[in-house]
Amino acid sequence: MQLLRGYYIEDLKVGMSSSYGRTVTETDIANFAGVSGDTNPMHLNAEFAATTRFKQRIAHGMLSAAYISTLIGTRLPGPGCLYISQSLRFMAPVRIGDTVIATATVTHIDPVRRRVKLSTVCKVGDTVVVEGEAETLVESRAKQAG
Amino acid sequence: MQLLRGYYIEDLKVGMSSSYGRTVTETDIANFAGVSGDTNPMHLNAEFAATTRFKQRIAHGMLSAAYISTLIGTRLPGPGCLYISQSLRFMAPVRIGDTVIATATVTHIDPVRRRVKLSTVCKVGDTVVVEGEAETLVESRAKQAG
Amino acid sequence: MQLLRGYYIEDLKVGMSSSYGRTVTETDIANFAGVSGDTNPMHLNAEFAATTRFKQRIAHGMLSAAYISTLIGTRLPGPGCLYISQSLRFMAPVRIGDTVIATATVTHIDPVRRRVKLSTVCKVGDTVVVEGEAETLVESRAKQAG
Amino acid sequence: MQLLRGYYIEDLKVGMSSSYGRTVTETDIANFAGVSGDTNPMHLNAEFAATTRFKQRIAHGMLSAAYISTLIGTRLPGPGCLYISQSLRFMAPVRIGDTVIATATVTHIDPVRRRVKLSTVCKVGDTVVVEGEAETLVESRAKQAG
Repeated sequence: MQLLRGYYIEDLKVGMSSSYGRTVTETDIANFAGVSGDTNPMHLNAEFAATTRFKQRIAHGMLSAAYISTLIGTRLPGPGCLYISQSLRFMAPVRIGDTVIATATVTHIDPVRRRVKLSTVCKVGDTVVVEGEAETLVESRAKQAG
Repeated sequence: MQLLRGYYIEDLKVGMSSSYGRTVTETDIANFAGVSGDTNPMHLNAEFAATTRFKQRIAHGMLSAAYISTLIGTRLPGPGCLYISQSLRFMAPVRIGDTVIATATVTHIDPVRRRVKLSTVCKVGDTVVVEGEAETLVESRAKQAG
Repeated sequence: MQLLRGYYIEDLKVGMSSSYGRTVTETDIANFAGVSGDTNPMHLNAEFAATTRFKQRIAHGMLSAAYISTLIGTRLPGPGCLYISQSLRFMAPVRIGDTVIATATVTHIDPVRRRVKLSTVCKVGDTVVVEGEAETLVESRAKQAG
Repeated sequence: MQLLRGYYIEDLKVGMSSSYGRTVTETDIANFAGVSGDTNPMHLNAEFAATTRFKQRIAHGMLSAAYISTLIGTRLPGPGCLYISQSLRFMAPVRIGDTVIATATVTHIDPVRRRVKLSTVCKVGDTVVVEGEAETLVESRAKQAG
């Protein structure tokens, strides 16, 4: 099953980047509410949401964060890496029908400690909705061999 | 609909705390994979997972993070607050059947800027699985009245 | 529990037909992506899909194929039959809001080997979206009695 | 959004292969029943299933087929390819807890018509549960440029 592997640390370079995009549907918000238990009326109650600054239901900020996690876990560095930390700054709301593009870009590689930092950003069009930094631990070919 | 409201900033005090607990099921992991798109085999492939350091499928780290978001959005400070930022440090894996208790505790209140910081931690028994800090913007009764 | 049974081979005749129809919603596509892991942006990313030949998000072809499987497994021949093979030719896209009508028609019966072949087609209005052939193994009353 | 692209026909070679694995849970079967409508008691009714040759509930054959579709749509050839046809031969049942590994291998490339054929197989351990052939239409770099 070696095809399931992501990148080894030797294969990563600063500047490498990957994206994952998804249009946020009403279904996604309902499903995220179910799996998380976050029933905040801003997400699920259209009448309440109409009275807020956003005027309508918005997606859970952690749903966009989950797309970042998808990138880290499936693409860059991908399967086999260990997720150490993530910072998240929620900058703007995501509305039903918005297409969120999450992008992770390698910013720092420490080959000795096998730590890889990535800048992570979610955008809707040109608007940054979430930004932050991920830190991961990535396996080494050498360690595998040794 | 005033029952849907969370705390106003005047009602919050440093040290106030709230918790949300949930037993992580195989279903939760399947559903989180669906809503996020994170099909990393560590979460979904028992044979692959058996070859990893964790020896079995583990939950997405962002699922525990989502429980923190649930606390912030539904309990403390609760509906009406704006989620500004969250830091997450993934300390230990969550396995199927583990009960995760997420706890948020108010650590700092800035009444002028209406900012409230909370320490956030997820535990399985005595083991910290995720820790970090949340920052929120909370409405004021005064502003409402004014 | 005999009400759960489908047809015995003695009850089937060439030309017998059954249909199953369903309007494809955004929810169905999100849920199919979840259960399959198929996060191809043609299905989930409206902005990407707008740049493709189809101009919008389309349903997974295997979702229409699943409707054929539903017919085979629940109606004709129905519960008790064994699904041997299915060929699928994806002819045209299915868009959100399209109503897919899957139809299976018995084309060949081999009473000795208890094999039943069915032509299977999915249409949206007059447009064929998927076509193919199913082969099944169907129980015999005689065998049941013997 | 060019990062969302799969392979161009110029980048494919006979023998290239990709796999996707997933442990089939009770949840997956329930979710597949919901999205397809296939409520055959073999999949959903444990008492009925105990009376069948399989002695227990089995997964929908089309669920394994969906994993093949996931491979085609997200990995090999991946986003941008058009799924033309798929043949499926259901060889053995998949039970709850089985880990299905779907593998697609390029077997034939027609650069003029841009057609790519792949052998597709799903296995549980060493047992083939589904096998068949996929045909896809893959974009060309030349066509993009021209």
